[in-house]
Amino acid sequence: MISRRNLLAGGAVTAVGALTQRATPAQAPTQAVARLEPFHGPHQAGVATAPQAHAVFVAFDLLPGTGKEGLTRLLPLLTDDAARLTQGRAALADTEPELAANPAGLTVTFGFGPGLFAAAGVKSPVAQLPAFETDKLKKQWTGGDLLVQICADDPLTVSHALRMIVKDTRSFAEVRWTQRGFRGGAPGGTQRNLMGQLDGTVNPTDLDRAVWIGDGPLRGGTTLVLRRIRMELETWDAADRTAREFTIGRRLDTGAPLTGRAEHDEPDYQRLNALGFPVIAEYAHIRRTHVADPAQRILRRPYNYDDGLSAEGKPDAGLLFASYQADVERQFVPIQRRMAEGDLLNQWVTTVGSAVFAVPAGCAPGGWIGDSLLA
Amino acid sequence: MISRRNLLAGGAVTAVGALTQRATPAQAPTQAVARLEPFHGPHQAGVATAPQAHAVFVAFDLLPGTGKEGLTRLLPLLTDDAARLTQGRAALADTEPELAANPAGLTVTFGFGPGLFAAAGVKSPVAQLPAFETDKLKKQWTGGDLLVQICADDPLTVSHALRMIVKDTRSFAEVRWTQRGFRGGAPGGTQRNLMGQLDGTVNPTDLDRAVWIGDGPLRGGTTLVLRRIRMELETWDAADRTAREFTIGRRLDTGAPLTGRAEHDEPDYQRLNALGFPVIAEYAHIRRTHVADPAQRILRRPYNYDDGLSAEGKPDAGLLFASYQADVERQFVPIQRRMAEGDLLNQWVTTVGSAVFAVPAGCAPGGWIGDSLLA
Ligand code: HEM
Ligand code: HEM
Repeated sequence: MISRRNLLAGGAVTAVGALTQRATPAQAPTQAVARLEPFHGPHQAGVATAPQAHAVFVAFDLLPGTGKEGLTRLLPLLTDDAARLTQGRAALADTEPELAANPAGLTVTFGFGPGLFAAAGVKSPVAQLPAFETDKLKKQWTGGDLLVQICADDPLTVSHALRMIVKDTRSFAEVRWTQRGFRGGAPGGTQRNLMGQLDGTVNPTDLDRAVWIGDGPLRGGTTLVLRRIRMELETWDAADRTAREFTIGRRLDTGAPLTGRAEHDEPDYQRLNALGFPVIAEYAHIRRTHVADPAQRILRRPYNYDDGLSAEGKPDAGLLFASYQADVERQFVPIQRRMAEGDLLNQWVTTVGSAVFAVPAGCAPGGWIGDSLLA
Repeated sequence: MISRRNLLAGGAVTAVGALTQRATPAQAPTQAVARLEPFHGPHQAGVATAPQAHAVFVAFDLLPGTGKEGLTRLLPLLTDDAARLTQGRAALADTEPELAANPAGLTVTFGFGPGLFAAAGVKSPVAQLPAFETDKLKKQWTGGDLLVQICADDPLTVSHALRMIVKDTRSFAEVRWTQRGFRGGAPGGTQRNLMGQLDGTVNPTDLDRAVWIGDGPLRGGTTLVLRRIRMELETWDAADRTAREFTIGRRLDTGAPLTGRAEHDEPDYQRLNALGFPVIAEYAHIRRTHVADPAQRILRRPYNYDDGLSAEGKPDAGLLFASYQADVERQFVPIQRRMAEGDLLNQWVTTVGSAVFAVPAGCAPGGWIGDSLLA
């Protein structure tokens, strides 16, 4: 065999490297370019944005030396990467500029965990969640100082953006976890999750009240709760359709509430069946998680994950449950508490990872994400 | 907290389970249904099929008791699953029929490894590959008795088909490995891999000679070599563009050979530069792997994989290199041998998994994949 060393150290590469006409810089892509999501604006993209087909969530732990000074170097860098990549332009030190040419609706969204605020010496507007009895959190999927959520319709675009972000973060932080997800189902409709349910029917419409923060340091921002929720698909399949529809309070085929005919019919929580039991059960998931005031609802933007089979041969699959809300304590926690106290769905789902982040406001050209919070 | 047991064992579910009107069977999907790939035919789908965006390859080891008799029960079952799911119909015991409603170009392709033939007491038309010096095979990604390749444009469709296949296989075999991949790049063109290269430019066009087997027990079938090839993206990025283009012999932006201007220009392997060195280097990947006779070329149908960061914090990413050819020994092995003996690309790629399968012919309605081989 010809040694690798010889091939590269030998004359050929060196001579030709010096002599070949230098490669021309990456040309504008000749192929069709897919949708562009604006990066700059009052709010970060990736929250109100119609969910793209693919996502990766990456959480970093800041290195011991990274404080306010480091962050004010890191965040402008990452903001610049995001501003370029989302617009189909290569990042500054992009080694694969061709992979930037198809943004495919790319959004890059930043979240700050309590540890980031601590490192910066700034009071944190978010705290870790209280413990819930149904949680089985693994460290491997929990916490994180800095979150980057990367979404696009092309998984290659997601991979490339992730690599650029990870590279530029390297001197300041190390990766704590990455979680990849996807959405699916018939085009145009509500997505389906791996339990076969239409997932995302009821969401707030008045985002200015439910999602965006109106005042204080996080004005124009929001908060993100990311829960990694494993599904027990084996036992779920063992339950019959009636029990599964009863568990949620909606039909599997149409997504209609058990008291209605179409997906977006208003559920009738008062209706009783012939025996005098409520048609939508007391412990049905939609009853337990329902919030009457639309302005207090959480914005769910979930992705499915399917990591093949676990070591025990069981499907390692579930939901990357991403929820945005103006106030974690007031909006998310009560819902999660009711769910933990009693929800038929708990039989088949287990939360194995959890993290909370403040999502700063968007920025204008020239600014960077977090500037008003940290500067 | 309300005990889970009480919730389910208690009156509510039982009473309502008995009394609620039984859920109607899954209705025909009301949403738009995406492309259908025919299942029946002289060849299995998923080989000549234009590659879908997502794939999972799953390999099974037959359980000790599974011989010819077991296989003649298992394979008709899996064939039936595939025939239904690819046409947007639920599998026979489908517990999530809604997830079958969006086939999204689904193909399900079966391959038989040497161990399957041994179990059936039939002479194997395929053998394991010889060892190559550049391989670093891990057992975790190598071998397998039965392969199922599942491809679709919707990753949820892939997940669902995988689960149905795994379930129906359970009494006969256990999962050895699953590998998920995706394709990406600007719509309509050749896909790009994670090194940023256009990957898939040169492929045979006369599949009747290069891919489909003309006689013998595998007539109408082909063979699949699946190699899991890790990319050293960190060091790849450290190489400059000239070296990277020199390594392949093609440009990164257009995919054109270094001697041409457009992707599909014929490379000129004789052309020398001013110093008298060949423009496409002796150890450039396209020279080492080039096969002059189009009827002897392999059909490459690769998928990217990106499993986040490895335990050491390095990208765990690369190519699921799937190659179809009429004859492994005559077509694949010489190319792989030349590559192992010397190819600049070896500096940045390492094969960590490998498997070979016979891909039986397609079947007509009423038949099953492998019937003429095993019956
Ligand atoms: C794997 C875990 C989960 C699954 C499979 C799941 C599934 C569903 C489904 C099928 C619906 C009905 C359709 C819809 O409106 O989207 C729903 C609604 C909802 N879920 Fe979940 N869910 C999960 C976890 C959670 C968690 C952890 C929370 C919050 C703590 C939550 C909060 C909600 C809310 C607020 C609604 C809307 C209720 C309403 O109708 O007002 N879900 N979920
Ligand atoms: C991660 C590993 C690999 C990468 C990144 C890679 C990349 C490429 C690229 C960029 C091309 C040029 C464009 C094209 O025709 O598609 C190419 C061509 C080719 N590669 Fe690879 N390749 C890899 C592994 C392999 C392996 C293992 C084989 C077979 C043993 C192989 C066989 C070929 C062949 C036959 C061609 C076409 C050559 C021709 O122009 O006739 N490649 N590859």
